Amino acid sequence: MIPILLLNGPNLNLLGQRQPEIYGADTLADVEDRARALGAELGLEVECRQSNHEGQLVDWIQEARGTAHAIVLNPGAYSHTSIAILDALNAFDGTVIEVHVSNIHRREAFRHRSYVSLRADGVIAGCGVQGYALALRRVAEVLA
Amino acid sequence: MIPILLLNGPNLNLLGQRQPEIYGADTLADVEDRARALGAELGLEVECRQSNHEGQLVDWIQEARGTAHAIVLNPGAYSHTSIAILDALNAFDGTVIEVHVSNIHRREAFRHRSYVSLRADGVIAGCGVQGYALALRRVAEVLA
Amino acid sequence: MIPILLLNGPNLNLLGQRQPEIYGADTLADVEDRARALGAELGLEVECRQSNHEGQLVDWIQEARGTAHAIVLNPGAYSHTSIAILDALNAFDGTVIEVHVSNIHRREAFRHRSYVSLRADGVIAGCGVQGYALALRRVAEVLA
Amino acid sequence: MIPILLLNGPNLNLLGQRQPEIYGADTLADVEDRARALGAELGLEVECRQSNHEGQLVDWIQEARGTAHAIVLNPGAYSHTSIAILDALNAFDGTVIEVHVSNIHRREAFRHRSYVSLRADGVIAGCGVQGYALALRRVAEVLA
Amino acid sequence: MIPILLLNGPNLNLLGQRQPEIYGADTLADVEDRARALGAELGLEVECRQSNHEGQLVDWIQEARGTAHAIVLNPGAYSHTSIAILDALNAFDGTVIEVHVSNIHRREAFRHRSYVSLRADGVIAGCGVQGYALALRRVAEVLA
Amino acid sequence: MIPILLLNGPNLNLLGQRQPEIYGADTLADVEDRARALGAELGLEVECRQSNHEGQLVDWIQEARGTAHAIVLNPGAYSHTSIAILDALNAFDGTVIEVHVSNIHRREAFRHRSYVSLRADGVIAGCGVQGYALALRRVAEVLA
Amino acid sequence: MIPILLLNGPNLNLLGQRQPEIYGADTLADVEDRARALGAELGLEVECRQSNHEGQLVDWIQEARGTAHAIVLNPGAYSHTSIAILDALNAFDGTVIEVHVSNIHRREAFRHRSYVSLRADGVIAGCGVQGYALALRRVAEVLA
Amino acid sequence: MIPILLLNGPNLNLLGQRQPEIYGADTLADVEDRARALGAELGLEVECRQSNHEGQLVDWIQEARGTAHAIVLNPGAYSHTSIAILDALNAFDGTVIEVHVSNIHRREAFRHRSYVSLRADGVIAGCGVQGYALALRRVAEVLA
Amino acid sequence: MIPILLLNGPNLNLLGQRQPEIYGADTLADVEDRARALGAELGLEVECRQSNHEGQLVDWIQEARGTAHAIVLNPGAYSHTSIAILDALNAFDGTVIEVHVSNIHRREAFRHRSYVSLRADGVIAGCGVQGYALALRRVAEVLA
Amino acid sequence: MIPILLLNGPNLNLLGQRQPEIYGADTLADVEDRARALGAELGLEVECRQSNHEGQLVDWIQEARGTAHAIVLNPGAYSHTSIAILDALNAFDGTVIEVHVSNIHRREAFRHRSYVSLRADGVIAGCGVQGYALALRRVAEVLA
Amino acid sequence: MIPILLLNGPNLNLLGQRQPEIYGADTLADVEDRARALGAELGLEVECRQSNHEGQLVDWIQEARGTAHAIVLNPGAYSHTSIAILDALNAFDGTVIEVHVSNIHRREAFRHRSYVSLRADGVIAGCGVQGYALALRRVAEVLA
Amino acid sequence: MIPILLLNGPNLNLLGQRQPEIYGADTLADVEDRARALGAELGLEVECRQSNHEGQLVDWIQEARGTAHAIVLNPGAYSHTSIAILDALNAFDGTVIEVHVSNIHRREAFRHRSYVSLRADGVIAGCGVQGYALALRRVAEVLA
Repeated sequence: MIPILLLNGPNLNLLGQRQPEIYGADTLADVEDRARALGAELGLEVECRQSNHEGQLVDWIQEARGTAHAIVLNPGAYSHTSIAILDALNAFDGTVIEVHVSNIHRREAFRHRSYVSLRADGVIAGCGVQGYALALRRVAEVLA
Repeated sequence: MIPILLLNGPNLNLLGQRQPEIYGADTLADVEDRARALGAELGLEVECRQSNHEGQLVDWIQEARGTAHAIVLNPGAYSHTSIAILDALNAFDGTVIEVHVSNIHRREAFRHRSYVSLRADGVIAGCGVQGYALALRRVAEVLA
Repeated sequence: MIPILLLNGPNLNLLGQRQPEIYGADTLADVEDRARALGAELGLEVECRQSNHEGQLVDWIQEARGTAHAIVLNPGAYSHTSIAILDALNAFDGTVIEVHVSNIHRREAFRHRSYVSLRADGVIAGCGVQGYALALRRVAEVLA
Repeated sequence: MIPILLLNGPNLNLLGQRQPEIYGADTLADVEDRARALGAELGLEVECRQSNHEGQLVDWIQEARGTAHAIVLNPGAYSHTSIAILDALNAFDGTVIEVHVSNIHRREAFRHRSYVSLRADGVIAGCGVQGYALALRRVAEVLA
Repeated sequence: MIPILLLNGPNLNLLGQRQPEIYGADTLADVEDRARALGAELGLEVECRQSNHEGQLVDWIQEARGTAHAIVLNPGAYSHTSIAILDALNAFDGTVIEVHVSNIHRREAFRHRSYVSLRADGVIAGCGVQGYALALRRVAEVLA
Repeated sequence: MIPILLLNGPNLNLLGQRQPEIYGADTLADVEDRARALGAELGLEVECRQSNHEGQLVDWIQEARGTAHAIVLNPGAYSHTSIAILDALNAFDGTVIEVHVSNIHRREAFRHRSYVSLRADGVIAGCGVQGYALALRRVAEVLA
Repeated sequence: MIPILLLNGPNLNLLGQRQPEIYGADTLADVEDRARALGAELGLEVECRQSNHEGQLVDWIQEARGTAHAIVLNPGAYSHTSIAILDALNAFDGTVIEVHVSNIHRREAFRHRSYVSLRADGVIAGCGVQGYALALRRVAEVLA
Repeated sequence: MIPILLLNGPNLNLLGQRQPEIYGADTLADVEDRARALGAELGLEVECRQSNHEGQLVDWIQEARGTAHAIVLNPGAYSHTSIAILDALNAFDGTVIEVHVSNIHRREAFRHRSYVSLRADGVIAGCGVQGYALALRRVAEVLA
Repeated sequence: MIPILLLNGPNLNLLGQRQPEIYGADTLADVEDRARALGAELGLEVECRQSNHEGQLVDWIQEARGTAHAIVLNPGAYSHTSIAILDALNAFDGTVIEVHVSNIHRREAFRHRSYVSLRADGVIAGCGVQGYALALRRVAEVLA
Repeated sequence: MIPILLLNGPNLNLLGQRQPEIYGADTLADVEDRARALGAELGLEVECRQSNHEGQLVDWIQEARGTAHAIVLNPGAYSHTSIAILDALNAFDGTVIEVHVSNIHRREAFRHRSYVSLRADGVIAGCGVQGYALALRRVAEVLA
Repeated sequence: MIPILLLNGPNLNLLGQRQPEIYGADTLADVEDRARALGAELGLEVECRQSNHEGQLVDWIQEARGTAHAIVLNPGAYSHTSIAILDALNAFDGTVIEVHVSNIHRREAFRHRSYVSLRADGVIAGCGVQGYALALRRVAEVLA
Repeated sequence: MIPILLLNGPNLNLLGQRQPEIYGADTLADVEDRARALGAELGLEVECRQSNHEGQLVDWIQEARGTAHAIVLNPGAYSHTSIAILDALNAFDGTVIEVHVSNIHRREAFRHRSYVSLRADGVIAGCGVQGYALALRRVAEVLA
């Protein structure tokens, strides 16, 4: 089993509670359970974490150096403001797939630019929580 | 079987011949064959077309009204310059998934903005030609 | 009878089918029939054409040199992106009236600028499909 | 007879005296006489007013609430600078048609943006003083 | 007694020590004491918290969902840079009043834009520390 | 009793008639009556005036020099376009509190900048017509 | 004696009372008296007027057509916002000299652009109230 | 003889008919005849084509892969808007020389940027139709 | 007699030879002769110099420290590009009057900004070569 | 011995491990050891800390008030996004020297602006890890 | 023989020594020798000069008035910053051909705009040092 | 002893005389003496030059090719406007350290961008004249 990291950023712990007409009824726990299950099918051991703290996310990305082969990351609002997360990802050698539940290009202008996209190998947006599953499939393909 | 349309825009007929270190060795015919096969598994009848002509793409998108339930579209360079394609998509009621083989956010600045993203339900970039497969999975999920 | 050309650009063949709450229930055929009839009243022979292809519109504008005395043109989405159409119009000596069914100034920012307005003698927007009739009246006045 | 208001803004009292090669030889009195006559034909009672004062125009637009069914307005230079007129129009429920004698899109850049266009139902520019007549026809159509 | 939350962001723990000619001589403790007292008069139970950490503020705003009826928030410097706080507030259903001790519009350009203002129901700036009291009065009025 | 001036700019005479879902059902007369009553409680003699004319507002602000100790001002649309009002306020030595009934930061982009905020001592926006009362309380505090 | 018009815009009636360290101790009456006296020496009959109303200034400029040979104009804050005054000046055939008491290029950015400068024949700024005298000398030279 | 392609874009079929004071009296046929003749002298077999259609130009550039050693291209208005042509040229390995009959840098701002220049090896502008001859000389030098 | 410096920048040695319809028929020698004569009347000893070299102008401005009481400067094209001249002027304590023969605000956009205006006490533009005389009168007034 | 604080921001704990061709082979521990040794020579007691958390850095800067005489700070990616750190530094009275190991002006555009530079007394960039030593020398000079 | 001037600006004296993979191995002396030889064939007497000083180039362009019939000019870095050279060229009546050895449109953004192009009759870029020869051919054609 | 060049640009010959509260009391001679002395300690032979002429600085930088191992350069105002100096530095193979006595990031906006920083290996700003000493220490380290 290949270890990978699935990271969620600020406010994604509210999945399923916040604007379900947009984000759907699945909670973060549901999403993480399904990610772990699909990962197992694909030969991936998926470690799941979430934080509202920019510095915590930087710490975890650093720790993934040498332990995880890929990071699937939904940086939430930090996508648009955090160069620190970008720098941490630049120091990580594995595959990075960026996921957004909604299509950020159809929302406010300040959500259109993502610093993380400057480093990500792949970007998947607007596919709902299925985006996490698609990202895992991509990781499996790349690592194969 | 649910009919859907897979459209490729300008220069994508050169897939496999142009910059294989970026785009891979698969030709457009390979990509379309695999899309039809995976579509069959997922209950989708995938019609494939490619053109270098903006107006031709508009024509096909209009014809898809009433016949196809979804469009998977790689608009190539027209992503960044064609409001006409955006308008045609706005007149289409089904699901639209936009695909880019490379991560356009890591290329020149004029490739960062996509008019098509303003209409697309989902956007997948930087996952190589696997992006077409991921898009079909998303279509199957939405139509289910 | 004075010959004039009435040109419609991309997606306007969908008039009456697309967003009728905005564009009304009249089809392009209805619009063209009424334009020919009103033209006849005003002493104008109105030739009507539509295309989704930028190059086709350029071809027709060039052919109008020496045959038509005026062009009534709804360039649709090409208003905002086509310098080629602007150049073709610059090579045409007759009167040019630009028509938009909706008020483009109340829509997305990228629809606010029209290259065609840099050449048009008159611009009519937001008067619904009646805009074509108003444009013909203007042409008749100018040619009188 | 349906009452409507025809408003002209700053410097339009100079029509016929200022740059006749652009604006023609008709004076404002001529324009208003013809507007009243055409209005009568179309079943419209046209009240005509002109002022160089922004506040005066705001006053008149407010007074039109409950008395006039439509406003035909050439805001002159205030098109480009007056949010106060825009706000007054936003408080008016009837139809608003904006008229410019010249094609403002072919003049200096600071004349390209019109605040009034954000509220106007229709916009007619570059049709000379005939633009007022075209606007009245549009009003008659909408009110019918 | 209705529970509400009074949040202060980075560097506001230095109130009374930093630039007293601008911010006055009151400490944060003074401000919070007076806020609790005035809250009691107005029927509000005011819980006061301060942090220099963006993620901590997001956590607290999330916890306020279901417990507090309103948030009075001085986001300090995070006003201008934190979309994460904006998103957290978007997930909170109660009233939000934004407070700035100084008039941010008279300071450096990068302090003129506040993401929080995109969500706030009311904004009070440049009223000194009295701004907190005015905000509480507003909350009492809204909740009454 | 300390004399102060409460000024309202263009279109605010329509309060209670225009968009009551936004501005509430109170008329300007109601607002002014309550302002005078609250002023009396707080030891302030509140003189109330409204005009749609930019120049009239400048005149009144100039006259307030030497007679009023403070100005509470809702400049309406002139907030965004009038440097003349800003200059007049710069020549006034007393306290200036700017009021907006709605939160201008959540409206169109051209309403985000206020010239008056460059001079105002306090700014209150998005508190409904209660904003006038909060402003009077602030004035009373400052003058005490 | 050649008739000319000396116009002052908003807040210039406060000359000598407002910021004398910048504008000096001379009142507008002093300035106008000296202008009339110097005009007499130079063969010019100087008519002096001031208003805080944009529309009033437009009216006066229009009236000057056919009566005055030149206009010396300090448009105050309307320099930066009034296209209406620019248009009125464009309809005036005589000489126009623009005067600013202070050097507007050393003040806030929004005072750097003057619409009036697009029409003025000469511009004099930062020479204090002497600027009016220099402008009259220039007028006398041009009319000679 | 080395095969090369000479391509002309939209509206260049009007050479000699449109604005001869700018473009000269030579027709496109004249230009192409002389190009073939000079090419023969220099050892180049010059294939000449023109189209108003963006997609057609893309098709031809793609076909030139493997058959032509160089492309001399006047993209006309598509220089400024077509990323699709740029992409097609990026897939062509030979020499590319861009020609403009007029000096595009002395025309409207939107003609100053050329996407094609990002790929072209050489750019020649403002040398009239002689520019084609100079381009051929450059091609001969490079291929020698 | 008070010593002052009159400096002219690049291309002003061509006065009288270049575009006389704009700049008049006077040569630089004529201008300097008249400046010396008027200076003598006003009690000023006017030293005149011209250079096309930016560094030479910086040298002369530095040398004027301690010897000249004022500088009248027409920086020509360096107005718009030279921060070095601005810095040299910032190190000069006397009066600085900037002169432009033409009204730079009516020319190309890149001539609208002058770095020198950020330091100049007074600015005179568009008064022809009489501008030098008006500047000397201003200097005499200030030094008196 | 004078106490000073040496702070490093996000990702600088990876010094020596990340891109050694740019940042060199020295680890953060090496850098801190050498800083303490050089500090001792210069009479400075250097306290060293590093964090990936913006709020933690704000906390430490606040604690330095009253204890440290100077701060040497490499804010890493927060240089470009953190107004909170700027505000904390604005509340610190001692000397602040900003250090960047690489020359940030030669990297991506979003790294060119540093909020910290708005407060720093000195800025040293592109001198490698020697930059810390140069900063300590500057601190010693200023405190002497 | 017709006299013409070939001017080279800053750093072009380093031709052949600086980045030969871009600029080739030819020195400036080689280029000038070949230019004189080719000029002689074409009936042109070519005077060659180079300077790193902006003012010197202005001086030489001025001297060419009345002596040279054309100027071939490679302004180097001054292309992008010198309005003074543009002004000098505007005072020259003959033909001006601008040459750049490399294709400036493929280099940094600040090299894309050339002031000199606003005046040049022809522009040749990216043809290596052969560009000088092509420019001489153009001059010969124009003067014939 | 290793030869290096210490260059100062325009107005730096006024060090010690201009704004001593910012730049200190040291003259350029003092600075150069100390630089030579410190250089000797560090094994560097420091050649010092200053000019107000952009072309002169370009000449000296070119001459340093092959003779000096490093350049310490304070380009003064040319930092912000001179691409010619940047090009000259690009042709120099040694180390380049840029020095600014004041912190240019805290001054006017047009001083924030430095072309020289695009080439410099190190940048030191806001360390007063000590910046030169720090730069020399950096040079010694790099050359060691």
